[in-house]
Amino acid sequence: MADTAIKPTRQENYPEWYQEVIKAADLAENSPVRGCMVIKPWGYAVWEAMQRDLDDRFKATGHVNAYFPLLIPLSFLEQEAEHVEGFAKECAVVTHHRLKANSEGKLVPDPASALEEPLVIRPTSETIIGHMYAKWVQSYRDLPILMNQWANVMRWEMRTRLFLRTAEFLWQEGHTVHATAQEAVDETLKMLDVYADFAETVMAMPVIKGMKTPDERFPGAVDTYTIEALMQDRKALQAGTSHFLGQNFAKASGIKFLNPKGEQEIAWTTSWGVSTRLIGGLIMTHSDDDGLVLPPRLAPEHVRILPIYKNDQERAAILEACDRLAKDLRATTYAGAPIRVKIDDRDLRGGEKSWQAIKQGVPLRVEMGPRDLAQGSVFVGRRDQGHKDKKSFAAATFAQEAVGVLTEIQSQLLKKATAHRDQNTVEIESLKDFESFFADEHGGGFARVAWSKGAIGHETLARLKVTPRCIPLGSTVEPGAKCIFTGAPAEATVLFAKSY
Amino acid sequence: MADTAIKPTRQENYPEWYQEVIKAADLAENSPVRGCMVIKPWGYAVWEAMQRDLDDRFKATGHVNAYFPLLIPLSFLEQEAEHVEGFAKECAVVTHHRLKANSEGKLVPDPASALEEPLVIRPTSETIIGHMYAKWVQSYRDLPILMNQWANVMRWEMRTRLFLRTAEFLWQEGHTVHATAQEAVDETLKMLDVYADFAETVMAMPVIKGMKTPDERFPGAVDTYTIEALMQDRKALQAGTSHFLGQNFAKASGIKFLNPKGEQEIAWTTSWGVSTRLIGGLIMTHSDDDGLVLPPRLAPEHVRILPIYKNDQERAAILEACDRLAKDLRATTYAGAPIRVKIDDRDLRGGEKSWQAIKQGVPLRVEMGPRDLAQGSVFVGRRDQGHKDKKSFAAATFAQEAVGVLTEIQSQLLKKATAHRDQNTVEIESLKDFESFFADEHGGGFARVAWSKGAIGHETLARLKVTPRCIPLGSTVEPGAKCIFTGAPAEATVLFAKSY
Repeated sequence: MADTAIKPTRQENYPEWYQEVIKAADLAENSPVRGCMVIKPWGYAVWEAMQRDLDDRFKATGHVNAYFPLLIPLSFLEQEAEHVEGFAKECAVVTHHRLKANSEGKLVPDPASALEEPLVIRPTSETIIGHMYAKWVQSYRDLPILMNQWANVMRWEMRTRLFLRTAEFLWQEGHTVHATAQEAVDETLKMLDVYADFAETVMAMPVIKGMKTPDERFPGAVDTYTIEALMQDRKALQAGTSHFLGQNFAKASGIKFLNPKGEQEIAWTTSWGVSTRLIGGLIMTHSDDDGLVLPPRLAPEHVRILPIYKNDQERAAILEACDRLAKDLRATTYAGAPIRVKIDDRDLRGGEKSWQAIKQGVPLRVEMGPRDLAQGSVFVGRRDQGHKDKKSFAAATFAQEAVGVLTEIQSQLLKKATAHRDQNTVEIESLKDFESFFADEHGGGFARVAWSKGAIGHETLARLKVTPRCIPLGSTVEPGAKCIFTGAPAEATVLFAKSY
Repeated sequence: MADTAIKPTRQENYPEWYQEVIKAADLAENSPVRGCMVIKPWGYAVWEAMQRDLDDRFKATGHVNAYFPLLIPLSFLEQEAEHVEGFAKECAVVTHHRLKANSEGKLVPDPASALEEPLVIRPTSETIIGHMYAKWVQSYRDLPILMNQWANVMRWEMRTRLFLRTAEFLWQEGHTVHATAQEAVDETLKMLDVYADFAETVMAMPVIKGMKTPDERFPGAVDTYTIEALMQDRKALQAGTSHFLGQNFAKASGIKFLNPKGEQEIAWTTSWGVSTRLIGGLIMTHSDDDGLVLPPRLAPEHVRILPIYKNDQERAAILEACDRLAKDLRATTYAGAPIRVKIDDRDLRGGEKSWQAIKQGVPLRVEMGPRDLAQGSVFVGRRDQGHKDKKSFAAATFAQEAVGVLTEIQSQLLKKATAHRDQNTVEIESLKDFESFFADEHGGGFARVAWSKGAIGHETLARLKVTPRCIPLGSTVEPGAKCIFTGAPAEATVLFAKSY
């Protein structure tokens, strides 16, 4: 049996491996509230790193943050027909505002406190934000509105999985209003680019940008754009979406403006979001059978220093040298900020500490023992290499060299994930090949297929549990190509996959 | 009539002035959901500045962030008797998880989706976090646990006021677990110090640190500590609290650990929080009859540059000079980060732009017109001085000088607020003097009074709407002093005030 820190391995049982990686890295766990997770400090620190980077990108593209109410009146949900159909089925509904003790002394909702109009916990905020925007927008001078909110949302899910699908999750939702359709489309695509660049340069997770087919659109959107990544089990993950909402929500909410000619027009809106689901994608893109692998750009610690000593005298000298090294590292800039370092001076066995750093995905482990101290060196393990595959560096120059090593790890992770994705992306020209490509219970990969709208709802797709992920941006249709499902002339090239 | 940007003035109608300052600065507004506010971009940027500074302080004192569920099962609330009494009366209760259309096509909670056990939206998270801690703590080696969460919470309030009292609000809640009572008390007081230092050095809002009298404690706490500030209308604002929870919540949640001798002990816990209410305190501490006044440490913009020109030719030259100045300012460090600058190049009258900067509380307004450009100077208005009281600076050296001016504004605001507080703090030795001190409808100030527990519930207090704010830390009782309410031997010196 393989000597791995995580059991089962990816090969043996991918879904269980995923749960075990989360447990071993102490990222999150289930709570007593059905479908709601607790995000533990190591997982939350990864989310904070994501937030900080995304927030900077949103602000650099002219957006400002705001905060809108958690609760949405039922009547708001009813305003947009497709939207209510898409979201009303899975909402937490607030019906009372007070508890009281019943005759047995148990707390129950006080019937006298029943709300006239029930409220739902936001599954997404188009309707409540649209209501406010309708008040704020009068003239073309008030446009564009470019706002984002960081918030929790809730969708009652029957089958949940940590990070990937939870009833409550954390996300950001951008909501913008524009004077013209073109401006709104440009915004939608600009934010898709922001997400794609973040995914590739920060998460080291390659993505395909594309437009959703009609059956996979956000309820109420004219067009939904998506970034799609391929996990190690060859299933796809929708990692972020950006919606061109046309005038649908503006009509429902009454967002109108006077144009320069003094005529009233209906505005054009967009919305776009990514969530804590990204952490699930991060785990499944890079982690291995020894646990979490974090790209340096998102690692809460870049370097964990592991002091090694046998007695108190050694301890003092070693810890002093570790402190010096930590200080050097913190004085060094990686990706625009000081290198993040922790000295693990807990009273535990060295092997246990080293394995914990591995399972938590810390990019660099630095061992410093009496021999290293005498030689002025440190012994360094990289998380993207084998755990025994360590290399000696001069302690005096390690801080400077660390920047290069972290940069290399970041780029290697992207390269490896991209190779995996490309190796598992195929062009498929017949339904038979399609069937055999996806016959494998786990994954299969990305299949590029000539498609027509008539393929929506095709029985093969439901049976194989394969869905259209997107029409990749820039993809074209071969002249004369036929839809592999219907035989009709192809309307687009669609990327298909099994998905999370 | 006074020529003020805000009407009514503080003198004329303080509560209305408060609402108008918020409106004029575009900080927040009421939403269609009862008691829930929308925090608009300028208000949210102030909150982000507060968050960033507090979060750094929490991390510097060894705390890590995590995230716990929004919803709490009813049975959890019942675990701690005083806690349920204090919080169960004002909760949003989730009873269903699905909506459906009724016979008239209206959305209603689907009766088939009724929850077996209703859930409440967290009014505070001691119980759900305690439940998780009980799972995580086994041994003294697992202690202390030092966690914080940034979250939204909800308390159903009948009378709400923007920032000061809203049904939903944003806050942070720290929750820690310790092996000994002493350690927990030390933590409680350490975080009180963090809050007090933040209030004074960042918000420029002086506070009195103290312990709450028993009637004002957090439901379930052994001791509640508080920071209390005095607003300009001489009413107090409780700005933050830190609770020593003893073993009450640890018993209720079952947080136990094996000590080094292998014996089982019950742990000791604390909790502490500040919220968006701080923004209300900030407004009422510094703002004047021209609108919001922001201490530079929390201003989303330190400097707003106002270009002045008459034609396109002037415009190009002026905007170029403004860009140069903005670049210089951004290259300059104030309070550990680059100076935040915005050039207001909107096509509006100069007076309108200048007044907007004043009403929004921007610390420095910098006018740059053709004459300034010719002379190599800029014309600078300080928000803490009269709006006509402007001063010329050399453009080339202004960036460096701005740091000193911002530092001086920050310290002047604290000095002014401290003088106001001290001028309105008195020692009171008789019930008669107490009555006349608080006879004024608005405020009165802080009254230091010899007090005994028997005074709790005294009719004078209810009638005057005066409450004990705290027993100031370090305060003593004069030998032989008598409680002014009961005549019994005094047990403490208590600070009384009307309050928000």
